[in-house]
Amino acid sequence: MSSTLVIHAHPRPGQSVVTQALFDALAPMDNTALRSLYSLYPDFDIDVAAEQEALSRASLIIWLAPVHWYSVPALMKHWIDQVLAHGWAYGGDAHALRGKSAWWVASAGGTEAMYAPGGAHMRPFADFVAPIEHTARFCGMHWLPPFVVHGGHSCSAQQLAEARAKLVEQFTGHQRTTLKTLEAQP
Amino acid sequence: MSSTLVIHAHPRPGQSVVTQALFDALAPMDNTALRSLYSLYPDFDIDVAAEQEALSRASLIIWLAPVHWYSVPALMKHWIDQVLAHGWAYGGDAHALRGKSAWWVASAGGTEAMYAPGGAHMRPFADFVAPIEHTARFCGMHWLPPFVVHGGHSCSAQQLAEARAKLVEQFTGHQRTTLKTLEAQP
Repeated sequence: MSSTLVIHAHPRPGQSVVTQALFDALAPMDNTALRSLYSLYPDFDIDVAAEQEALSRASLIIWLAPVHWYSVPALMKHWIDQVLAHGWAYGGDAHALRGKSAWWVASAGGTEAMYAPGGAHMRPFADFVAPIEHTARFCGMHWLPPFVVHGGHSCSAQQLAEARAKLVEQFTGHQRTTLKTLEAQP
Repeated sequence: MSSTLVIHAHPRPGQSVVTQALFDALAPMDNTALRSLYSLYPDFDIDVAAEQEALSRASLIIWLAPVHWYSVPALMKHWIDQVLAHGWAYGGDAHALRGKSAWWVASAGGTEAMYAPGGAHMRPFADFVAPIEHTARFCGMHWLPPFVVHGGHSCSAQQLAEARAKLVEQFTGHQRTTLKTLEAQP
């Protein structure tokens, strides 16, 4: 059976609204393991072997975090730097993640209007995706279109419920597709 | 007099060749302070007040680091997340960095051919710059074209000397321009 790993990172869990809601929506899903990096590694001391072991069991990997400075929070970047290691994720014959799917689920504080010419962020969110996307691609992973919730600072309960429902719907589709992709592999 | 702050981050200084050469080229420059994050904060425990104080004294800020996963190393991302704080660098009337210049000096392991369609990284390096660029711009900083040394894994001594000379030349120009910009301000 296809399994999913959610790598979750929020530096201030007590202030997390949108990311927490998305986390809560994913938590009860079938065959889904969750790892909250700021709970596991408050001192940034990542257990690389444990993270690689968890990754090796998953076929769909979700990076769930708020957008901090047009990217993932620092501990998730540290996770990327440490866990996606040369000789394991890439380099020579190493390809531990090849064929798995990667999905960035992100809560952006800024509205879509802010992520546009003339807005505070000047460009669409898509312009900031390349570093994370190519991190996955360089490891031979299949890149799924990011799931982005905009305007996190001012989400109504209704908007939050809609985002959760949309996430669960897309998640279910991705789990199904991932399973088919795996079955089709020799 | 215009002053420069070099924020330097290399997680494995003993293996640093290009970044170290660029650091050594900048170290003796006039009116230039240097902060090596992995020496100062091996446990990721950043002294935010000290970093903000150092920034407040500088008019040209250089982020010097190897490219790790199409971005800066994790400790530099942590520095960005912690130091460029709401209420200091942005938000409301906060604009501690407004009018300063930001310059990303980066050592990329991959050659220019790898940063191209058909290469391992699939896109030009410029496509990965947006998150760092807009971090600076969102704080009201003036963004300078990044200085990127490609092919760091296979640089000859000659190529390294050329990169150092080019860096020093551009640095001198940026210091001069930064000074003029500051003098022109009301």
